[in-house]
Amino acid sequence: MSQTIRIGICGYGNLGRGVERSISQQADMSLVAIFSRRGKAGVEPLNPLTTVEHLDQMIHYQDKIDVMILCGGSATDLPEQTPMIAQYFNTIDSFDTHAKIPEHFAAVDKIAQKHQHVSIISVGWDPGLFSMNRVLAETVLPVGETYTFWGKGLSQGHSDALRRIEGVKHAVQYTIPSEQAIKRVRQGEQPKLSTGQKHTRECYVVLEAEADAEGIEQEIKAMPDYFAEYETSVQFISEATLLAEHNEMPHGGVVLRSGHTGEETKQTYEFNLTLGSNPEFTGSVLVAYARAAYRMKLKGQVGAKTVFDVTLSELSPKTPETLRKDYL
Amino acid sequence: MSQTIRIGICGYGNLGRGVERSISQQADMSLVAIFSRRGKAGVEPLNPLTTVEHLDQMIHYQDKIDVMILCGGSATDLPEQTPMIAQYFNTIDSFDTHAKIPEHFAAVDKIAQKHQHVSIISVGWDPGLFSMNRVLAETVLPVGETYTFWGKGLSQGHSDALRRIEGVKHAVQYTIPSEQAIKRVRQGEQPKLSTGQKHTRECYVVLEAEADAEGIEQEIKAMPDYFAEYETSVQFISEATLLAEHNEMPHGGVVLRSGHTGEETKQTYEFNLTLGSNPEFTGSVLVAYARAAYRMKLKGQVGAKTVFDVTLSELSPKTPETLRKDYL
Repeated sequence: MSQTIRIGICGYGNLGRGVERSISQQADMSLVAIFSRRGKAGVEPLNPLTTVEHLDQMIHYQDKIDVMILCGGSATDLPEQTPMIAQYFNTIDSFDTHAKIPEHFAAVDKIAQKHQHVSIISVGWDPGLFSMNRVLAETVLPVGETYTFWGKGLSQGHSDALRRIEGVKHAVQYTIPSEQAIKRVRQGEQPKLSTGQKHTRECYVVLEAEADAEGIEQEIKAMPDYFAEYETSVQFISEATLLAEHNEMPHGGVVLRSGHTGEETKQTYEFNLTLGSNPEFTGSVLVAYARAAYRMKLKGQVGAKTVFDVTLSELSPKTPETLRKDYL
Repeated sequence: MSQTIRIGICGYGNLGRGVERSISQQADMSLVAIFSRRGKAGVEPLNPLTTVEHLDQMIHYQDKIDVMILCGGSATDLPEQTPMIAQYFNTIDSFDTHAKIPEHFAAVDKIAQKHQHVSIISVGWDPGLFSMNRVLAETVLPVGETYTFWGKGLSQGHSDALRRIEGVKHAVQYTIPSEQAIKRVRQGEQPKLSTGQKHTRECYVVLEAEADAEGIEQEIKAMPDYFAEYETSVQFISEATLLAEHNEMPHGGVVLRSGHTGEETKQTYEFNLTLGSNPEFTGSVLVAYARAAYRMKLKGQVGAKTVFDVTLSELSPKTPETLRKDYL
């Protein structure tokens, strides 16, 4: 690669920082600028030499950036930002509101087609690598059942739900996959499992002074959608313990397909991630797909794309010759 | 899919049978004919209604078959057959002599380009799905180490080596991955491991009458390349036991990448196959890639390809809309 791929980051929270770190691991990429609503004053990049700009300066970078990686949230940022920014740049986003993916794809595709850009949406590990494995597993084993287990992982949504309870000062929630359920599928069973049978939930809660611990525990365990359907454990801990022992963002999970070929031959397919940091890993995946977006655009492809539309040759920094010689 | 993809099978051993079984699991494919050197009289297809033809009849099927799946061996069949047959058909093969893949690719590419066919080479699980995971893992985690463990699996080459020993009537050999080594990598270590440290070898041997068991065991354990570098166990069993308990062809393995993001954040990527039947699973993978070859040709692509050049959209029988809606 003689040409360096020039990257911009839009949005600078945990994910944006993960992307910044990942770009520094890539020989064929350079980070041109971080764009944030908060502007220069509000952002402290990991590398102090990194250019920071206010979001409204982005359009002046059209000739300086090959791919913009959008690191905003799926609830409100990305539905608005991806179509808007796809006017000016090839884009990567991690849109993960599963139910709204077709709608988001259509909105982005329209703009990206019109402005001749490549926009890869819903990149990361789920949606992303897990989605790829669900498709690949079912394609090579068409008869069978696919299971996705998440965790052990910090769930932001569930942690937020805990924090909204009166008397809770701080809290984190881990989603734990059921080892028993995973074991059954690995052995070639195809059990019917509800989400509640696949996972348990562990809550670590710091109480406000004089809060009613027993009442709060009951309130948590009864909370519909979030906890009522799950085996849930609640532990009350001190703020110091929470800050010391629960300040990381691990995650991961398993995609498992139990299938049959021939008469009754069991075949088991498993994909497994154990992530020390969810945002750093997700950032790494976004950066890899930025390379693919750049190359797809060079080849004349345009429009919205997903991980299903990208080849490994486009994704890898290695040449096709090296891939065939050393990796096949 | 309104159009059925019409498949031919060239070569009918264990892999050819695996392909025949897999085609019967696909809604969008039909098996047109099996071609064999042995001709009609020498082949008994699983479905007695399947057409069987002598190899030399293949050229009369150019308008009747969309993709020819080559099920011969890598030592002598495929280097000759794939380039020859790529003149007439889109092809899939499972060429697995790693060192000769670049040479095979070049030979097939030349013919496939000239005759405007798509020829996907080296399809299966290794080379194949394992190769894809080696590339994907390294691309999303550029800093780290990748490990491939094989087994528990029946190794044809090692079983053959045992059978060549004087006094051995029959034998099978299983390659066993080292649980200890896998555990270390899963925990985020990046140990230096020789092939011998990653695997052990289990031999089940039926002796000829009056054979020297102790001498044979020593001869096995000292055999260079095959056993000397490995922790090897030898068990002598009766022919009845061998036929009853060792008549299946299990295989599988693990691709593991232990990587770092950020400062020192551990990230572990794992892909795992546990296969009740190696040829049935490999056959299933070949059949899935036949669909991709057919679609790539429809889109105007030609030449030799590998699993690195194929998108999941091209591979899956589902529409892109369904994939985005239900699998992303």
